[in-house]
Amino acid sequence: MMRADKRSNDEMRPISFQADFQLHPIASVMASFGATRVLCAISISESVPRWRKEQQLPGGWLTAEYQMLPGATSPRGEREVSRGKISGRSAEIQRLIGRSLRAVLELSKLPEITIHVDCDVIDADGGTRCAAISGAGLALELACKRLQKQGVLSQWPLRQRVAAVSVGMLQDEAILDLCYEEDAAAAVDMNVVMCSSGRLVEVQASGEEASFSEEELAKMMGLAKKGLRQIFDASEELLAKGLL
Amino acid sequence: MMRADKRSNDEMRPISFQADFQLHPIASVMASFGATRVLCAISISESVPRWRKEQQLPGGWLTAEYQMLPGATSPRGEREVSRGKISGRSAEIQRLIGRSLRAVLELSKLPEITIHVDCDVIDADGGTRCAAISGAGLALELACKRLQKQGVLSQWPLRQRVAAVSVGMLQDEAILDLCYEEDAAAAVDMNVVMCSSGRLVEVQASGEEASFSEEELAKMMGLAKKGLRQIFDASEELLAKGLL
Amino acid sequence: MMRADKRSNDEMRPISFQADFQLHPIASVMASFGATRVLCAISISESVPRWRKEQQLPGGWLTAEYQMLPGATSPRGEREVSRGKISGRSAEIQRLIGRSLRAVLELSKLPEITIHVDCDVIDADGGTRCAAISGAGLALELACKRLQKQGVLSQWPLRQRVAAVSVGMLQDEAILDLCYEEDAAAAVDMNVVMCSSGRLVEVQASGEEASFSEEELAKMMGLAKKGLRQIFDASEELLAKGLL
Amino acid sequence: MMRADKRSNDEMRPISFQADFQLHPIASVMASFGATRVLCAISISESVPRWRKEQQLPGGWLTAEYQMLPGATSPRGEREVSRGKISGRSAEIQRLIGRSLRAVLELSKLPEITIHVDCDVIDADGGTRCAAISGAGLALELACKRLQKQGVLSQWPLRQRVAAVSVGMLQDEAILDLCYEEDAAAAVDMNVVMCSSGRLVEVQASGEEASFSEEELAKMMGLAKKGLRQIFDASEELLAKGLL
Amino acid sequence: MMRADKRSNDEMRPISFQADFQLHPIASVMASFGATRVLCAISISESVPRWRKEQQLPGGWLTAEYQMLPGATSPRGEREVSRGKISGRSAEIQRLIGRSLRAVLELSKLPEITIHVDCDVIDADGGTRCAAISGAGLALELACKRLQKQGVLSQWPLRQRVAAVSVGMLQDEAILDLCYEEDAAAAVDMNVVMCSSGRLVEVQASGEEASFSEEELAKMMGLAKKGLRQIFDASEELLAKGLL
Amino acid sequence: MMRADKRSNDEMRPISFQADFQLHPIASVMASFGATRVLCAISISESVPRWRKEQQLPGGWLTAEYQMLPGATSPRGEREVSRGKISGRSAEIQRLIGRSLRAVLELSKLPEITIHVDCDVIDADGGTRCAAISGAGLALELACKRLQKQGVLSQWPLRQRVAAVSVGMLQDEAILDLCYEEDAAAAVDMNVVMCSSGRLVEVQASGEEASFSEEELAKMMGLAKKGLRQIFDASEELLAKGLL
Repeated sequence: MMRADKRSNDEMRPISFQADFQLHPIASVMASFGATRVLCAISISESVPRWRKEQQLPGGWLTAEYQMLPGATSPRGEREVSRGKISGRSAEIQRLIGRSLRAVLELSKLPEITIHVDCDVIDADGGTRCAAISGAGLALELACKRLQKQGVLSQWPLRQRVAAVSVGMLQDEAILDLCYEEDAAAAVDMNVVMCSSGRLVEVQASGEEASFSEEELAKMMGLAKKGLRQIFDASEELLAKGLL
Repeated sequence: MMRADKRSNDEMRPISFQADFQLHPIASVMASFGATRVLCAISISESVPRWRKEQQLPGGWLTAEYQMLPGATSPRGEREVSRGKISGRSAEIQRLIGRSLRAVLELSKLPEITIHVDCDVIDADGGTRCAAISGAGLALELACKRLQKQGVLSQWPLRQRVAAVSVGMLQDEAILDLCYEEDAAAAVDMNVVMCSSGRLVEVQASGEEASFSEEELAKMMGLAKKGLRQIFDASEELLAKGLL
Repeated sequence: MMRADKRSNDEMRPISFQADFQLHPIASVMASFGATRVLCAISISESVPRWRKEQQLPGGWLTAEYQMLPGATSPRGEREVSRGKISGRSAEIQRLIGRSLRAVLELSKLPEITIHVDCDVIDADGGTRCAAISGAGLALELACKRLQKQGVLSQWPLRQRVAAVSVGMLQDEAILDLCYEEDAAAAVDMNVVMCSSGRLVEVQASGEEASFSEEELAKMMGLAKKGLRQIFDASEELLAKGLL
Repeated sequence: MMRADKRSNDEMRPISFQADFQLHPIASVMASFGATRVLCAISISESVPRWRKEQQLPGGWLTAEYQMLPGATSPRGEREVSRGKISGRSAEIQRLIGRSLRAVLELSKLPEITIHVDCDVIDADGGTRCAAISGAGLALELACKRLQKQGVLSQWPLRQRVAAVSVGMLQDEAILDLCYEEDAAAAVDMNVVMCSSGRLVEVQASGEEASFSEEELAKMMGLAKKGLRQIFDASEELLAKGLL
Repeated sequence: MMRADKRSNDEMRPISFQADFQLHPIASVMASFGATRVLCAISISESVPRWRKEQQLPGGWLTAEYQMLPGATSPRGEREVSRGKISGRSAEIQRLIGRSLRAVLELSKLPEITIHVDCDVIDADGGTRCAAISGAGLALELACKRLQKQGVLSQWPLRQRVAAVSVGMLQDEAILDLCYEEDAAAAVDMNVVMCSSGRLVEVQASGEEASFSEEELAKMMGLAKKGLRQIFDASEELLAKGLL
Repeated sequence: MMRADKRSNDEMRPISFQADFQLHPIASVMASFGATRVLCAISISESVPRWRKEQQLPGGWLTAEYQMLPGATSPRGEREVSRGKISGRSAEIQRLIGRSLRAVLELSKLPEITIHVDCDVIDADGGTRCAAISGAGLALELACKRLQKQGVLSQWPLRQRVAAVSVGMLQDEAILDLCYEEDAAAAVDMNVVMCSSGRLVEVQASGEEASFSEEELAKMMGLAKKGLRQIFDASEELLAKGLL
């Protein structure tokens, strides 16, 4: 099988992270996985959700939101505000982003603040949730550095880095980092969220009108780990610039 | 570690499926996993969603909805209609139920109908989404039998049976079929949806404020397969009654 | 006129009340009037609505909600949460249930709590609001007994029992306890809510595209009283079991 | 007991109906019951609801809406559009208005049109739903006259006139046409909708935190009939002007 | 060009202001510009919006709402509550009304109250927002007089009067106070809000599918000032009655 | 008075337009007015709104939507989808953008298509609606060029270019192109939308808690025309690249 863009099955698309794309957020990162681009921004509000107060949970909170710009897809996507509510798909993705980041964040080491993570898809070509998690992880690290300097944080709250990648089964072959065309045709779609230590945070494998064997699951997991290494390497670029 | 109800780590709670709990649906199944009870009902409407017509996709469609009765939890849960929209959690679960059932259903073998799957949680004690998938799978099979007899279906559309089970990591031990108390305390929560052939349909492993190793993933997967066998066995009960 | 199920005009369908159908609520009752089944559950929250605090009204509050499961009717009913709001019909019924129960409840004898009454229709075959009021009344009594034992209630707050029944005019004859088919065909539809003392709580008689005379009103009222006696008798069953 | 405005217990407040208050509707009537004023307007649209077409029901349809202007009460009432949905109270009232008018209207004698009845409360001082029904009934009659002249109606669709009045029990006395102050204090609140022939259309008696005897019901019904006669008489005024 | 109602291009329709149309508001004015009638009511609530408290802004606040009765237009307009939200057009107009009145009101001279301005269109024939601003301005003045007498206001908060008028370009001629028919046909539509001193508060000129020159803008402005003088004169009527 | 960024009162901030920022839209332009950045994208759908069909209006339609990313402001702005509806401010702005573009677009020269204009604010520092109109105007021109090449357009539908600028009164001086800090402090805020021919499309001058004289209006208009010339000049850059 020849992939649409001639990549080999275990090859990522070009990855890049551009820091400080926006003016106002504490930190923002434009994450690119090939043609997919997601703008990830970190803002702070000085309170925690009521349920945390009521349960007297110490520390802060982190919450994520995910939306696509209407022009991020072709044909144009309707704005969710026009239908009055966020779609099931967006709700599911923003819950995943939040859980993934909280897995590496020690909430008890935060003061009583909420960290808002906004992931807005500028261009969608497959893998938007993975680009969002990977970019948001870096933006969060960058924000923590700055909040530490400003004295808002008195302890370092991040345990390690986090990133995400998609893998799938297409024509009985396992492939890494699916573009939209591949994603639409794949029999199985899998997302893996991993810490820089190699420990897993989320594994979601899903067959739409299809099923898969344990061997296929293992093959996809192997590819995912390979891709995640490349994503962690790409983040070194920001490190080299003294940002992280 | 001693489990709350003294089960061993690889032991399921008592499972049962009661057919035809409701009067009007083509088929309904009350699925019980221990104290968790989910009422799963199948209804038919004679059309398919507009997007399927516009894309000229042949056959029918299946869609699922999931809600908890307010009294299914303690403290009482607010009705989602009171907030004007379904929660992110419910949206995610009903998408999972729909994908799981469509994985074993050949839509092209259906006439132009929509199969509605309604999963309403009567009592929640952990594992409601797994009870819902397992119960809905049986209700769907029962409904197909009846629709075939009525001549609505001219071909048998189900490839095999489907069921789901939850596993998790609690105090560094892998455990099967978590009750609510265990679920709330677990570091990792995993749901596995599998066909009767042993092929996988969905694997979702998720660490809330935690991570897990590949070895732990493998251990949980082993337990899940063991539990799923028991669920498939429990469905034989309905078969024995001549219902399936 | 021969009734659909061969009952005489002044004959109720078989009535039964099954206590503690659900696990978590303080008390729950599954009320059956023939094929109609409504699950009525009582939960408590430890506050009262803001308007009661602002008006400095002493004691507690009771509020009711009513919904049908989608599979309670044929064809399947759309979930109200899908349309983003509760229907006019449900709003009207839940207001009626709340008023009916408050008529026998001395709010000033409650501590500062809200009693939530949830009536969920499992199977609808006419008379769901009457089954809901009758079942909820018993669930409320059972809950008060338990709350008294737990020391939550220091005074007995219920003045008497309450129950409801439907009557109607069909082909110029007054009939008792209409099933769905009769309800749809009736020229006049009437619901009577009564205390065990015989005093009335609500009388709602309504002609859809029809009118009725005072004589007909009196005839229907006579039948209603007869039916209500049978409902009060049926509740003795629970009493006999030591539940009330 | 001395009533707030010194009326005797069986005395209506001054009633008046002012025709053609608005410019655009086919007919409109400002109905005044004492200080209560409700503007009732009739408009037409040239189609019927989808459910009537699907069920192939012949003729037309009538639907009613009821709202209060924010300044109709003191303190000011919040607009229902601000909360995004109509209140339970308004939903209940507009369903009552619709049923009451349809009881005297032969839908099968209408062409395929929908008659929209808009009841907007300008000033509220108790009895707004009764003023709305009484005023809307006259506006409907006036509209039918004009639609007949225009040739839109080929048959006269109204069977007779309809009107409504409120009665109640206050300090153990039955009183007619309650003003707001009396309504708020009454133990029992009852609305009676009647045709000019004396046949009943709706009877709704309701005790909020109270109950009532059959004798009280009969007393209230007697007062209601007396009041309804006065309302029918007041409509003669419009007749005298050649409007009806 | 002959105007629809034979007015000259610089001629206003008959203007009138009727005070105290409603029972409960502190003050209300029915403003008529020809066949256009808008009911403007002033109510008070004893608090200010949270954002003013949080920003520690002194004094009170004024907010406006604007809606059309369904029967104010032909064909009948759908109620905005039925669609669950206020339309873009209404949102824009009520923001304009609020800004216009706040321009002449010294918020810092109010106690901590919110003044609610409700503008409900009874009959629409063009210029409803201008009639609303002009009528609401007078109702506000009347309300302030009464609040001063009651001791609620300790200082006079109004700097001067405010009024609004519409002008437009139709068939290359500037015309004053457009009726609906002219408004629908005009190439340019302009609204001018002015203080009694002649200072401007809002100028909104807008070409729908058209543009206009600076000369045309000047001509329209000239007409507007002429019209506004007449509106200020018409308010003297209320003054003469000792109301202002 | 010294302006925040040392500009003279009649000086624009640096303006730039970057074409084709997004992958999927027919054309997109990132418009920068100083630190303000708005992404303007053009997409097409092959139908027109129902009201245009019903009124049998020939040609196509253009509609605009405007939203801010949450991170476009500090503090972070809540997403409008979270509140379930678009704000009054956004509704007003997107209506203005739509009218402004339709003023230079001959709808009758379009085929039966809808042009969707999406303006998403990346960074807000005052003047977002003006940057949106100016950027969207260029994106529309670019899109029309491409649609003409593709044969979708058979006639050139744009009459001329359109742009917008903000002016205001601050400390009694008229200033051009206000940044956020100036906008918040200004007594009068004015937006002028103009064609490249110099004809006006929209003039909106507004005093929040203030008023202004005709002389001030004239001064602001003079500055606006100066600024608009510079915006039209800046668009030549894209022209020089052969894009327009």
